[in-house]
Amino acid sequence: MEAVKVGVLGLGTVGSGVANILQRNADEIARRAGRGIRISTACVQDLKKQRACDVTDVTLTTDPNQVVSNTDVEIVLELMGGTDEARELVFKALDHGKHVVTANKALIAFHGNEIFLRAQEKGVTVAFEAAVAGGIPIIKALREGLAANSIRWLAGIINGTGNFILTEMCDKGRDFNEALKEAQQLGYAEADPTFDIQGTDAAHKLAILASVAFGVPLQFEKVYTEGITEISRMDAAYASELGYRIKHLGIAKRTPNGLELRVHPALIPHRRLIANVDGVMNAVIVNADALGPSLYYGAGAGAEPTGSAVVADLIDVVRALTTDPENRVPHLAFQPDALSDIPVLPMDDVLTAYYLRIHVVDRPGVLADVTRIFAVHAISIEAIIQKELQAGATSVPIVILTHQVNEQNMKRAIAELEDLSTVTSRITRIRLETLS
Amino acid sequence: MEAVKVGVLGLGTVGSGVANILQRNADEIARRAGRGIRISTACVQDLKKQRACDVTDVTLTTDPNQVVSNTDVEIVLELMGGTDEARELVFKALDHGKHVVTANKALIAFHGNEIFLRAQEKGVTVAFEAAVAGGIPIIKALREGLAANSIRWLAGIINGTGNFILTEMCDKGRDFNEALKEAQQLGYAEADPTFDIQGTDAAHKLAILASVAFGVPLQFEKVYTEGITEISRMDAAYASELGYRIKHLGIAKRTPNGLELRVHPALIPHRRLIANVDGVMNAVIVNADALGPSLYYGAGAGAEPTGSAVVADLIDVVRALTTDPENRVPHLAFQPDALSDIPVLPMDDVLTAYYLRIHVVDRPGVLADVTRIFAVHAISIEAIIQKELQAGATSVPIVILTHQVNEQNMKRAIAELEDLSTVTSRITRIRLETLS
Repeated sequence: MEAVKVGVLGLGTVGSGVANILQRNADEIARRAGRGIRISTACVQDLKKQRACDVTDVTLTTDPNQVVSNTDVEIVLELMGGTDEARELVFKALDHGKHVVTANKALIAFHGNEIFLRAQEKGVTVAFEAAVAGGIPIIKALREGLAANSIRWLAGIINGTGNFILTEMCDKGRDFNEALKEAQQLGYAEADPTFDIQGTDAAHKLAILASVAFGVPLQFEKVYTEGITEISRMDAAYASELGYRIKHLGIAKRTPNGLELRVHPALIPHRRLIANVDGVMNAVIVNADALGPSLYYGAGAGAEPTGSAVVADLIDVVRALTTDPENRVPHLAFQPDALSDIPVLPMDDVLTAYYLRIHVVDRPGVLADVTRIFAVHAISIEAIIQKELQAGATSVPIVILTHQVNEQNMKRAIAELEDLSTVTSRITRIRLETLS
Repeated sequence: MEAVKVGVLGLGTVGSGVANILQRNADEIARRAGRGIRISTACVQDLKKQRACDVTDVTLTTDPNQVVSNTDVEIVLELMGGTDEARELVFKALDHGKHVVTANKALIAFHGNEIFLRAQEKGVTVAFEAAVAGGIPIIKALREGLAANSIRWLAGIINGTGNFILTEMCDKGRDFNEALKEAQQLGYAEADPTFDIQGTDAAHKLAILASVAFGVPLQFEKVYTEGITEISRMDAAYASELGYRIKHLGIAKRTPNGLELRVHPALIPHRRLIANVDGVMNAVIVNADALGPSLYYGAGAGAEPTGSAVVADLIDVVRALTTDPENRVPHLAFQPDALSDIPVLPMDDVLTAYYLRIHVVDRPGVLADVTRIFAVHAISIEAIIQKELQAGATSVPIVILTHQVNEQNMKRAIAELEDLSTVTSRITRIRLETLS
């Protein structure tokens, strides 16, 4: 049987990774898929550019229409990034009856709902395993492997750059800027790292995971997002003393009042497996009603790990070429007419425990003032540690771990604490998740 | 659309788990699968027995033919265990054109090759996710999620009973018999625990994992198998001192000379995630050429975790009901006519590092005799620790970690060491895997 022909939009890092995998593992892939899979056409920006893959048998073009409307091409691979042009070209490909495989999390997070609708109308598939957690087959695990379960919550380290920075801060006592510079030198962070360190990238991925887990439409705009820029090495050290590690998590949780969708740093007990996921690696814990907790760990970025997920999607699409469209695995795990409209919970109503670092003048009665404010807001305290006054310092840090409280009460308490004349600087607040 | 009707052979622990999941999550499952799924008929041994699930709408029978040849039933669920009768009934079901879902690892390990051949002839599917690592979707991950990769090796904690016992020994300093008794009291171990503690159960599962990973036929009879009965709490304590934990692993590895298929206890560096998989939990690391290392963790047994995998298989089968048989995901990941006959490496040729505990009389020159024998067999030593002579003891333990050496050389060295008059008892030998 003839090989399935794939047209590619963008032959950069991930595109080259995909091309190299398809070439190197051509035999095993054909033995699995039942047919060969090869890249026939690729749209690139610069025809003369040196490539990280062999393009001998690939027709290169600078015109994306040569890919999306090419009658030879059965599957279009969107690896160009960005949302506007990518969206337009994906729609063109669907309208030409092509299946689409993409690694573009922003595209799916922003435009997934309309893209899946169009794909359904056209009887084709849009696959996006590579959009979340690189090569870890987490979309497949949620959509198919755990399909028997009602998912209670999931929590993931889904941004490798951020995890690398936090690992350096926790393990080597580095400060944020130093760790970020190292990440950039190693090629883990972009020259403009905003999307990674502000949590936007993780929020795109969380929106996708939540849809697949809970059967709700994609709603990136409702994800509460905090980055890691406020974490100091002092907090990393105190967390460690208390038996915790700081990780940047994407959390989606079903509660009686609605869904929690939130991305922020959190203290995690160091004995949890996910607390020991270090460097650029990603991991997702899923807590499901029948299976209980399960965890999926692996490389969240890089040419070949991401390529691994892209090629797995290609194989899935090839295997399903003869399936009636309505019997294929649905894009968002649930049948398109069976999505729910569970509301997303406002962040103010979310319950979590907290780590607080409060700098106060070293004077009797200060702790009494602080604890009184907690009592007023019904915040119960799990532990208080008052540090020694350092030589030359005028204030001492108090570290407090609280029990669960809703976000609004905590905000009010923090505002009142910061108004105390004995509190000398802004209070650092990091959420604490036991993940149990 | 009418619900798909499932006939069940065996309504014990797992069967009840499946029934409860199908009932409790009926709505979510139908939203995912596009059709409802319900148990219509079940074959049980005793019609009067109290069940752990609601059987109001289920026709109970003691005649398995009422299930396997029932024209209403589209999918047969084999949950009876054992290999002879199960094999016969699965063949009958296939011959009647039914799809089969099974949780029976022994059945697949022994009879999988002929079962899949018959299924292929009949154009139906046999699904067996629940046969390995309970609810962890590891078969799906290997067969579909990692389909782009050439798998280098995999290593798994795939027997929860054994892992519970070793965890108790390592963490609480218990001895083997005490830990086994506790496992039996908690219901984790059978009254006759032979299959778990001798490694047979893990060997069944490893044979299945290896086939799916490497595209080779099932060959349980070639799996080298050692259990955990020889591990003492002394070894658990020494391993811990040296920075390792002892785990019972199933390992399948591609080498230039053939496949390694082996089940045995091993020391693992304690910083590895899998070294921290405790109690009855299971985990599998897969090292693949494009993705690199990835890990899958979750409950390896129990009514609902196993039921989770069974129901996921049911949903997969339902989703694929209209697929042309040749386009379905192949049973062993690779197309049936594309399996390889890579040879399995004899255990004597396998390279691993070792932990050895040697009891010797406390006399000068003994260490020189020991190290001379290692040198003769080209075994290089990574570390030697000689323990203090305990009051009242006549011999001292020497603990040795070696670099990699082939099994045959190590066996010869051990035989010569045990012949030394200064070596006072049998040498304890545990393999050491860095899993890097």
